[in-house]
Amino acid sequence: MVFNIFVLIKNCIIFILCFVVLPCCVYGKEVEMFDILIKDGIVLTINGNNEVLKGAHIGIKDKKIAYIGKDDNLLAEQYIDASDKIVLPGFVNTHTHVPMSIFKGIADDLPLDVWLNDYIWPLESKYMDKETVYKASLASIAEMIHSGITTFNDMYFFENEVARAANETSIRAVVSETLMDGKTVNSKNFVEGLAYSEWLIKKWQGNDLINVGVAPHAPYTASSDLLIKAKELANRYGVIYHIHLSETKNEYNTIKKEYNSTPVEYLDNLGVLDKLTMAAHVVYLEKNDFDILKNRKVSVSHNPESNMKLASGISPVYGMLRHGINVSLGTDGVASNNDLDFFDTMDIAAKLQKVYYMDPVALNAQEVVMAATLGGAKALNLDQYVGSIEIGKLADIIILNIDDMHAIPLYNPFSQIVYTLNPADVSYSIINGKIVMAKGNILTIDEEAIKESIIELQKFISNDLQ
Amino acid sequence: MVFNIFVLIKNCIIFILCFVVLPCCVYGKEVEMFDILIKDGIVLTINGNNEVLKGAHIGIKDKKIAYIGKDDNLLAEQYIDASDKIVLPGFVNTHTHVPMSIFKGIADDLPLDVWLNDYIWPLESKYMDKETVYKASLASIAEMIHSGITTFNDMYFFENEVARAANETSIRAVVSETLMDGKTVNSKNFVEGLAYSEWLIKKWQGNDLINVGVAPHAPYTASSDLLIKAKELANRYGVIYHIHLSETKNEYNTIKKEYNSTPVEYLDNLGVLDKLTMAAHVVYLEKNDFDILKNRKVSVSHNPESNMKLASGISPVYGMLRHGINVSLGTDGVASNNDLDFFDTMDIAAKLQKVYYMDPVALNAQEVVMAATLGGAKALNLDQYVGSIEIGKLADIIILNIDDMHAIPLYNPFSQIVYTLNPADVSYSIINGKIVMAKGNILTIDEEAIKESIIELQKFISNDLQ
Repeated sequence: MVFNIFVLIKNCIIFILCFVVLPCCVYGKEVEMFDILIKDGIVLTINGNNEVLKGAHIGIKDKKIAYIGKDDNLLAEQYIDASDKIVLPGFVNTHTHVPMSIFKGIADDLPLDVWLNDYIWPLESKYMDKETVYKASLASIAEMIHSGITTFNDMYFFENEVARAANETSIRAVVSETLMDGKTVNSKNFVEGLAYSEWLIKKWQGNDLINVGVAPHAPYTASSDLLIKAKELANRYGVIYHIHLSETKNEYNTIKKEYNSTPVEYLDNLGVLDKLTMAAHVVYLEKNDFDILKNRKVSVSHNPESNMKLASGISPVYGMLRHGINVSLGTDGVASNNDLDFFDTMDIAAKLQKVYYMDPVALNAQEVVMAATLGGAKALNLDQYVGSIEIGKLADIIILNIDDMHAIPLYNPFSQIVYTLNPADVSYSIINGKIVMAKGNILTIDEEAIKESIIELQKFISNDLQ
Repeated sequence: MVFNIFVLIKNCIIFILCFVVLPCCVYGKEVEMFDILIKDGIVLTINGNNEVLKGAHIGIKDKKIAYIGKDDNLLAEQYIDASDKIVLPGFVNTHTHVPMSIFKGIADDLPLDVWLNDYIWPLESKYMDKETVYKASLASIAEMIHSGITTFNDMYFFENEVARAANETSIRAVVSETLMDGKTVNSKNFVEGLAYSEWLIKKWQGNDLINVGVAPHAPYTASSDLLIKAKELANRYGVIYHIHLSETKNEYNTIKKEYNSTPVEYLDNLGVLDKLTMAAHVVYLEKNDFDILKNRKVSVSHNPESNMKLASGISPVYGMLRHGINVSLGTDGVASNNDLDFFDTMDIAAKLQKVYYMDPVALNAQEVVMAATLGGAKALNLDQYVGSIEIGKLADIIILNIDDMHAIPLYNPFSQIVYTLNPADVSYSIINGKIVMAKGNILTIDEEAIKESIIELQKFISNDLQ
């Protein structure tokens, strides 16, 4: 009897093991079904150790990165073959004015005052309205996706239209209405601008892709009253404060003369510099400014192409990085670039620092890719969500072809990205776990329709200008 | 009878008019059959008046441009639809070392002496032989054709292999064997180098596509004896004299110390500067040097990407242009760029001069396109044959797409070429009246086979380096 009970217990255990535990384990294995599995890529993780994994797979589940490794037996709803391709976090463009794409090439190689007074400002006041901002944003977003950008930080007018375009096309964005003392195309004064900004923040709260910031234009176009009120608004909602800072020698001289302090010191004295401040350009700095930016944890958006094209000057970003300041990269608006090609931005950023510091070691390719990804995410206060390929982060990932003639041979993927590749090499873009571009085709935008609408607008503007 | 004679004469005249003159006229019209007719393009002629023709046709016959105009009734063996495309002379890359493409990205962001002593020179002496030079040249030529380059000026070793690759793939080239005092991978001393150069000149004499030059490496690597003997050889055959000149501060200081003159003055004192001298880089100049370069009619090859990446310095090319010196553009070798993308070179050239002179007007887009085409042809003493779209010149022509999102809108074709377009926008390349690329596909090169051979070489080098 005792024996029988033991036998019974033994049989029960065997039964449970065979028909409950084992199937559960197998079933458990089976239900590990990813939404997307990116297979066999050269993965630049941009994680803490900056690991590069060769032949690794990335599993995406519920918008997030759920697996990074080399298990070949994983299952997914959708597979992307990334063998002989580079896989890395999407680029973060931390300073741009996307609706300005409609003015691409309309006024180049001109003195700054002629460019602004005779072209950009009259053109803006004449042609920029909600509909144009929306259409031009769609065109720029398409260009940015082709260029590997998965997040952009915009400062312009009618920013709700920029947000609408970004949301519809599934790109991550931080949008901020430009605030100036005077009238803008979207507000009579800065009080209206602040009200619009607050409305915008509330409107997009809780949206997966759209974040809203507060953006006083610059120390020389926004009074101290505006600068402070804008920061109060940003603080109230815990959003970023996006501002042009120390961009030109003129601005530097104006502020120095008026306040006996550098633009950076001036903003620090107003108490508007902190971890949520994203300062664009930052070309003219004194020694003390480096300490202020570092101590206040301000992030910088370096825009080398615009700084060169407008002859603003060369930002000492290699010095800032060495000083422990977070540096990110921006294209600036198309009118001063003239494109949204992030590969150009990276290439020129690296080369410009080398010749500026007369040191070929300055700003190496790995530092540039860091600035273009995690540095950008940090600058926009999004680094806990995006900017690197790590378990638990949202899946903002791009996949680059490296089989065109110009991409061969490949010794160092960081070098290749910064110095060699082009937007035409961007094959896939995944944003927030969704495939928005596959094999160079954007899935969320009707590019032909947008092109037509932009060409129509161009014809109208061209006829009008004659 | 008299009447009958008049009637006879009248009938004869009618007969002759109807059956001889008219058919001859019609036949004459009919035999105006072009080899290629490029139809309806936006044509940047780069002629004396820098005319831009919209909706114009270009007829090519017997390798030459035989027609430019708007007659819609022309006949040709082959038509190319260039409507909504930009048509311009092919780019002339006036300074490069094409076989170095196999070292793309192998050693970046390093101090110059480490880069040269620990990487480039040992790699060259270990891996560069005739076969590698030939293969690597094919890869570079493919990359250059994709980038719109129709002529390149090379300085390296085993230049006969570069010439062979260029000739086989139908790209125009000027090739020159690098001459140095010491041993090179292809000659024991400069006497051997000079002999090889002379053999090369004779070998390719009369070839349609290949020109040969004489190339002492630089004032600090070639003795005055070599510099003079090389010039004597160049003069004997009326070919160009290709030399690195005043590239780095180190070179400038070395020559200044040794000869108490600038590198430019030193070469002038040796009597080697004239219209056939093509000086690459030319970064460090004193005031008198501008006059020497102008008076001797020396041409300059500006290589902004290499000068930046190696931290050599910024060449004052805008000042040289204003001084009346002919300026052209070069990519330099891939190891210091890291590609052969001429659009990058143009973009960076324009932007770098603006920030260097702190003047947004400096080196405008039209000046850059001039330097990239006719300026290059002048620098290589080929301007009577190529560099512009004019009747009687050889047909070296490229056609650019402008329908991708980044190329829209289009207000100014010069701006678009310099600041916006990429190699992926180059659709057609015609060299010496022959279509070498159509719709982005190179017709004269088996790209896949070349890629495979370069990847094989890369694997071998990678394994060897470990």
